[in-house]
Amino acid sequence: MIVRNYREVKAEPVIKEPGVAVHWLVSQLDEAPNFALRLYELEPETRTATHTHYWEQDVFVVSGTGAVVGEEGEIPLSAGDVVYVPPGEQHQFVSTGHKVFRFLVVLPIVHQTRV
Amino acid sequence: MIVRNYREVKAEPVIKEPGVAVHWLVSQLDEAPNFALRLYELEPETRTATHTHYWEQDVFVVSGTGAVVGEEGEIPLSAGDVVYVPPGEQHQFVSTGHKVFRFLVVLPIVHQTRV
Repeated sequence: MIVRNYREVKAEPVIKEPGVAVHWLVSQLDEAPNFALRLYELEPETRTATHTHYWEQDVFVVSGTGAVVGEEGEIPLSAGDVVYVPPGEQHQFVSTGHKVFRFLVVLPIVHQTRV
Repeated sequence: MIVRNYREVKAEPVIKEPGVAVHWLVSQLDEAPNFALRLYELEPETRTATHTHYWEQDVFVVSGTGAVVGEEGEIPLSAGDVVYVPPGEQHQFVSTGHKVFRFLVVLPIVHQTRV
């Protein structure tokens, strides 16, 4: 069993996404066989790239305010909100508040590089 | 894409675990192919059953204080803590504070019944 606080896991900047960083909470480095858990942090007025992947993605908003932009337009997000992105659906996360927008992402372990 | 707040998902009591309830945030009902996301709530002075399963489990503590009891003994938990339970390792979650202890659980979608 591994127990760690997310703050103990160094936030790594995401390439080509200024103001976006990720804590790799559970990954293949822990020999997790199936899924990875990450915590994303978006500084105010920043956003992830719009992207699509063939795997599903679960999101849980930890703190701050933001939005997810998908096929239905922009949907606002705050703490306690859950997003399920089905495989193949385009999406983007946006930080809309004055504080850091933090959310957890769950995705399959085989997809450890950002697309 | 599905967006919902965890409070909108009814908390269901866990059988034979008094004071323990679960919000099924993402499940096979959403046609999620690989993994499920749940939020557990433990009232003060309650605990889950000690249990083991052959799949891995990721946990993220949302609020409250508690502990995970495993092979290494009892490890205290609070907001922002992450637990990775490898397949086959015995574990139990305990609520140790005066407020509800809330944590997210990620596990494979094929295992939707509590063991």
